[in-house]
Amino acid sequence: MFPLKEYHQRLHTLKKRMAHEGVEVLLISNPSNMYYLSNYSAWSFYVHQMMIVTLEDAQPIWIGRQMDAQGVSKTTWLDDHHIIPYPDYYVQSKEKHPMNFIVNILKEIGQSNRVIGIEMDAHYFTGLSYEQLTNGLPNATFKDTTTLVNMIRLIKSEREIECMRKAAKIVEQTMQAAYDKVNVGVRECDVAATIFHSQIQGTKDFGGDYTSIVPMLPTNEHTSCPHLTWTDQTYKTGDFLTLEIAGAYKRYHAPMARTMSLGPAPHKLKELSKVVEEGIQLTLDAIKPGMTAEEVERVWRRAIEKKGHTKASRLGYSVGLSFPPDWGEHTISFRQGDLSILKPNMTFHLMPGIWYEDYGIEITETILLTDKGVKTLTTFPRALYEKSCLHMSESV
Amino acid sequence: MFPLKEYHQRLHTLKKRMAHEGVEVLLISNPSNMYYLSNYSAWSFYVHQMMIVTLEDAQPIWIGRQMDAQGVSKTTWLDDHHIIPYPDYYVQSKEKHPMNFIVNILKEIGQSNRVIGIEMDAHYFTGLSYEQLTNGLPNATFKDTTTLVNMIRLIKSEREIECMRKAAKIVEQTMQAAYDKVNVGVRECDVAATIFHSQIQGTKDFGGDYTSIVPMLPTNEHTSCPHLTWTDQTYKTGDFLTLEIAGAYKRYHAPMARTMSLGPAPHKLKELSKVVEEGIQLTLDAIKPGMTAEEVERVWRRAIEKKGHTKASRLGYSVGLSFPPDWGEHTISFRQGDLSILKPNMTFHLMPGIWYEDYGIEITETILLTDKGVKTLTTFPRALYEKSCLHMSESV
Repeated sequence: MFPLKEYHQRLHTLKKRMAHEGVEVLLISNPSNMYYLSNYSAWSFYVHQMMIVTLEDAQPIWIGRQMDAQGVSKTTWLDDHHIIPYPDYYVQSKEKHPMNFIVNILKEIGQSNRVIGIEMDAHYFTGLSYEQLTNGLPNATFKDTTTLVNMIRLIKSEREIECMRKAAKIVEQTMQAAYDKVNVGVRECDVAATIFHSQIQGTKDFGGDYTSIVPMLPTNEHTSCPHLTWTDQTYKTGDFLTLEIAGAYKRYHAPMARTMSLGPAPHKLKELSKVVEEGIQLTLDAIKPGMTAEEVERVWRRAIEKKGHTKASRLGYSVGLSFPPDWGEHTISFRQGDLSILKPNMTFHLMPGIWYEDYGIEITETILLTDKGVKTLTTFPRALYEKSCLHMSESV
Repeated sequence: MFPLKEYHQRLHTLKKRMAHEGVEVLLISNPSNMYYLSNYSAWSFYVHQMMIVTLEDAQPIWIGRQMDAQGVSKTTWLDDHHIIPYPDYYVQSKEKHPMNFIVNILKEIGQSNRVIGIEMDAHYFTGLSYEQLTNGLPNATFKDTTTLVNMIRLIKSEREIECMRKAAKIVEQTMQAAYDKVNVGVRECDVAATIFHSQIQGTKDFGGDYTSIVPMLPTNEHTSCPHLTWTDQTYKTGDFLTLEIAGAYKRYHAPMARTMSLGPAPHKLKELSKVVEEGIQLTLDAIKPGMTAEEVERVWRRAIEKKGHTKASRLGYSVGLSFPPDWGEHTISFRQGDLSILKPNMTFHLMPGIWYEDYGIEITETILLTDKGVKTLTTFPRALYEKSCLHMSESV
């Protein structure tokens, strides 16, 4: 857990933002936002739970499943008056819904006729939750606050950046371990196992955390499909693959992707890699605080268009603290139309992946905005790796 | 992928169920249900996507992010007319929402004034999705079909059971690997890394898949909090821990939990373990097809109440195919009030965990209903494991 004053600071900032937006009560379903405010990290988000922030209360209230209440008590700074368990028969029941319980609590604490912010598009805030909540609270006014807390998370504290640096150490050692393991005759699942082992073991000095997305390592023509995971097929000479992985430390992520081949890579992949490497360098050289997100994408787009390439998808997104199923923060995206202004201590996954019909390339970086420009959190060389199949244990 | 005829059979059964429920168009957000019908397993469910089943069409339609369309094309049985990508600017945007795109497709294909089933309480069907969909289709009638496909998944085919048997082999070897690794001076993250490695590597004959819940392995007083994961603390003599893990094969799960101590376990834990072991045996002996889910729980409850113990939470739940964040199927629960009738080829995680204020115990089994009774999918001995700290490499 961070020092208590950091949580107090976060809550203070949040309340100011709530007041500014005219939100009196904030209902938080997003586990990343719950963790940000309280340090609650248990894998309990597969059942409905809620954190309630009011302008008056000095602590958030957590409402969740009975068997999880002790986990909140033992791992967060909330006192037991702010931990409210619902009985187990609310779990995945056709008769009862946890939102009915939460509605009753809001009534009991006199918050049923307020302006209530809800995270309308958060992964675990379902349509039924929305319906039950709005039906149960006819005197409340609802506002969509999907990214209210996320926006506060955009600028990282020094302690958060320290977590991301540790995550970056883990992803570097993990990419190296994956490179060392990939070989002719090795199965995809064996490489995935090596990746997981390195991610979770962490370093001698600190352990790793699970990443919010599992390793993605499609092979050959499947590299055109960035979100495929692995099979138990065996690698052959001439295969190529993309690896998109992250390191995680206390839920903070540093993602990274690289592309590798076993033996010489196809010519088209080498050509595309050069374009991407140059595009990344130009983009990194250009990024400065004060730029907009769309300006960053424009630098990249012009660079690759000159070489006859296009990328339909965004060039990157804010990254940091996260829970499954995504390590992105859902705030700023590097793409046309995003006019967000970049500031120091923001962190992004610069994701210049290009996917064509039967091949794709991914060479990515986690970056930190500084006072003057940008730094990558890792120093893992940006290249297309052509691994010699004769030297099974060579290093990058 | 299973043989095509199995997907056709699933779709046929689903359409009969839809017709019976008066549902003309089914919108599927749950990635487990998408996979069940199509074999689509990519990690793309962190953005909005939808599978559409109509009574008329011989194939489901998939609508999702442009960069994921090729993954659907290359890994499912859907033809390209049934794969509809939306542009990337719909992703996590404040201006555009993927449901607007989906609404337009439904209009184009003449399905906008139908009785439309939506998975109201599925994890990735958000409140905003619901609002956009219902606002966009004012002439449609909506029905909550959260578990319509899930209910069909309850009874497993022989091929599905074969997947679960492979998952069970993986969880057995993984629990053994965890037992072998846990020791004084070892960090929790090192045990977690060993678990992940074994889960993903699988066996010599088949690789493993990621599990929909990460390993949970709380230590000492944290065993009262079943959903905590791991830290990088080092185990000491006298520590005890619960391990709830699963094996997964092609998205099919076999969960299992055990409790271990380093050196002699506390007396209260030994006593509780005996009660749980006896309760499990009595319950397993009693389960037969034709019983209701609540009758199963009653056998267990009476057994432990006689010994002065209670368990407030459900005794188990249907399990099988799943994607994060849960490996349960959200259909049948072993608890009072669940009158579902058990049938052969249903599979459950029998979860007789008991959590008190400063300790807990978990000894669980994945079970398969047979014609006459029940079988466990693993043969890992049910016991409280007291590992001698002197013999660092001893086996169970």
